[in-house]
Amino acid sequence: MKDFFKVMDIEAVTALRAGFPTAGEETVPVLETLDRILAEAIVSDIDLPDFRRATMDGYAVRAGATFGASDGAPACLTVRGTIRMGEVPGFAVGPGEASRISTGGMLPEGADAVVMIERTESLDDTLIEVYKSVAPGENVVEAGEDFRIGETVLDRGRRIRPQEMGVLSALGRETVRVFRRPVVGIVSTGDEIVPIHQVPSQGRIRDINTYSLAGWVRRAGGIPKIYGIVPDRPEALLATCRQASAESDMVLVSGGSSVGTRDFTIETIASLPRSEVLVHGVSISPGKPTILARVDGKPFWGLPGHVTSAMVVFTVIVRPFIHHLSGLSEASETIWTIPARITRNLPSAQGRVDYVRVRLSRDQGEWRASPVLGKSGLIHTMVKADGLVRIDRDVEGLEKDAPVEVTPL
Amino acid sequence: MKDFFKVMDIEAVTALRAGFPTAGEETVPVLETLDRILAEAIVSDIDLPDFRRATMDGYAVRAGATFGASDGAPACLTVRGTIRMGEVPGFAVGPGEASRISTGGMLPEGADAVVMIERTESLDDTLIEVYKSVAPGENVVEAGEDFRIGETVLDRGRRIRPQEMGVLSALGRETVRVFRRPVVGIVSTGDEIVPIHQVPSQGRIRDINTYSLAGWVRRAGGIPKIYGIVPDRPEALLATCRQASAESDMVLVSGGSSVGTRDFTIETIASLPRSEVLVHGVSISPGKPTILARVDGKPFWGLPGHVTSAMVVFTVIVRPFIHHLSGLSEASETIWTIPARITRNLPSAQGRVDYVRVRLSRDQGEWRASPVLGKSGLIHTMVKADGLVRIDRDVEGLEKDAPVEVTPL
Repeated sequence: MKDFFKVMDIEAVTALRAGFPTAGEETVPVLETLDRILAEAIVSDIDLPDFRRATMDGYAVRAGATFGASDGAPACLTVRGTIRMGEVPGFAVGPGEASRISTGGMLPEGADAVVMIERTESLDDTLIEVYKSVAPGENVVEAGEDFRIGETVLDRGRRIRPQEMGVLSALGRETVRVFRRPVVGIVSTGDEIVPIHQVPSQGRIRDINTYSLAGWVRRAGGIPKIYGIVPDRPEALLATCRQASAESDMVLVSGGSSVGTRDFTIETIASLPRSEVLVHGVSISPGKPTILARVDGKPFWGLPGHVTSAMVVFTVIVRPFIHHLSGLSEASETIWTIPARITRNLPSAQGRVDYVRVRLSRDQGEWRASPVLGKSGLIHTMVKADGLVRIDRDVEGLEKDAPVEVTPL
Repeated sequence: MKDFFKVMDIEAVTALRAGFPTAGEETVPVLETLDRILAEAIVSDIDLPDFRRATMDGYAVRAGATFGASDGAPACLTVRGTIRMGEVPGFAVGPGEASRISTGGMLPEGADAVVMIERTESLDDTLIEVYKSVAPGENVVEAGEDFRIGETVLDRGRRIRPQEMGVLSALGRETVRVFRRPVVGIVSTGDEIVPIHQVPSQGRIRDINTYSLAGWVRRAGGIPKIYGIVPDRPEALLATCRQASAESDMVLVSGGSSVGTRDFTIETIASLPRSEVLVHGVSISPGKPTILARVDGKPFWGLPGHVTSAMVVFTVIVRPFIHHLSGLSEASETIWTIPARITRNLPSAQGRVDYVRVRLSRDQGEWRASPVLGKSGLIHTMVKADGLVRIDRDVEGLEKDAPVEVTPL
């Protein structure tokens, strides 16, 4: 199988995602759209608001009537009615007139600004003094100032945050077309792995990858589907992989860290129907022995069995594929990295990208990234870590205080 | 009602959360624990691993037998068996001996290190040459090196990420004690607000706050419970508030931006059974007219009706209360802020904390925060924003290129 082992750069691997289709689309109620990806462009079919609206409590006026007003020389205006919330004023405001209005109220015909109530004094029921001039449009939102009819408000492929849910409701969208969340099958392999309800006999450990990968899949926007532990027998692994591939939009097989099992895993993946191995080895650390195949048109992964390697590979390689399957556009994919300074010298091998687990702390108004010590196979290093720092392949290492970008974990 | 209006600092408001109980606890399957808050400390009842484990493929040896080995002077060792994954080796390794082992395998009695297979050559079935010495413990994880029996692995009040799900499964925790997600009742008020399935007549707009607040509640870890739109009639608002308070762990009433409605909202809140108004006004912008009461022992909020103000208030004031009700410990509450430089001068009033919506972009290896222009009442300013920048109360404003911390939205 040695000829399979063609180590690829991580950028080349990530680019392969373009060759896979999205998981499809569905329609969901707007209340269920948080963190979903829009499968339609949202075009406003109204002017929002569709009327001139007050943004302050006070008096709707013609701005011109207040020009030159000051504490010493107030403008005197005649009060013409009160505007009720949610109603169209049945009157117009003329020069020298004002009408009481509350925040959100509709300005009457003739009025083009609102004087804040704090800038006025009521002389009697029908007369007010205004102590400060307003410009046309002041304390007012114009019709269509938020969104104009025909305007594209949200692009297809965008992730929906709470504020986008607000926009969708403003436009009366009770249901929204979004991409389906990809179903990600998770298979664990290895004769040394036991289900978590069992007490492992000596030489065995419980199944960790199934649960941490399920968490990562969910966090990335996918739906994990658990296939459990498969013993190291080709026919058993093949049967489970076939089933997982048929039932999922993507499959993760974890385990097979050793050369022997790795060969066995890749042979199994290669022997699935309509299978083509695309990647066998990625020039990153940890995570080099990562396998990617296209099986029946879907991404099919062989992840390292090491729990921490599997998590790093998921974060830096698999997650962008889930984003792609979820329809997330590249423009909307930004993950905020946190600029920090590294707290100690870090060696790194050239020719590969290294990912270092770090803990963040605050020092003199800056983030400091402290590498988490401990052998890379230990899960407690991931529990102690706040994020990952990438060290590029052409960098020999980082010196203490070097600036780094931390991707939160 | 003027005497109610005692504007408080945001820090003083946030500190009030300590006076409210958490939403209680429940037991859930480990697969459902992502982003939940631990209600128990997790103490390891095992050594993890509970045996000495190989982290590489190769040969288990006594390290001493390889000392001085080099390409020119290899150590010659006798191969004694192969260790099967998941099994206890039925033999010991003596001086001058080695046994084949795969990553994850259990070291036999007598072996204290693993020589990587790449550093060896097989002479025949029973003899290998080793070209590099190993130190005791090299390529090995010791028993208890990840977690020791009796060690507290995760603290109560910690948020569960995928890696913590991995730890829980490693310890055989099929179910976990977590805090209940607080149920947050959401009430919208205002005669100008119509349900989203309706086409608003002129002077009215659709209900935005219900949907964006539902999104924010969910994102903060709560469960939104929607009570719909209540018209501006005291008996209607009182009835809905009583019901929401009885059925929820916290209530958000949004609307009442105008002085009149604000008074009416606070009167209603104050007249609820076992109600005490704690806050009436917070010295922040936007969001000054925020109300907090303790009603029947639960936080009860009056939020501004302005959609953007309501969102800002939620993010900076309400969210910490949801964290508290969810049992999240302060040590685990850290929200990563992104250091950036502001792209233009920003004025700010002293005596209050200002929150400015910004868009992030990358420039010469740094994040740049561009203030989003547009009147603060417009929802599109929230849609365009990536985060919030806080300008402290004793700061008169920010100069272009000043360093700021961006809280992602």
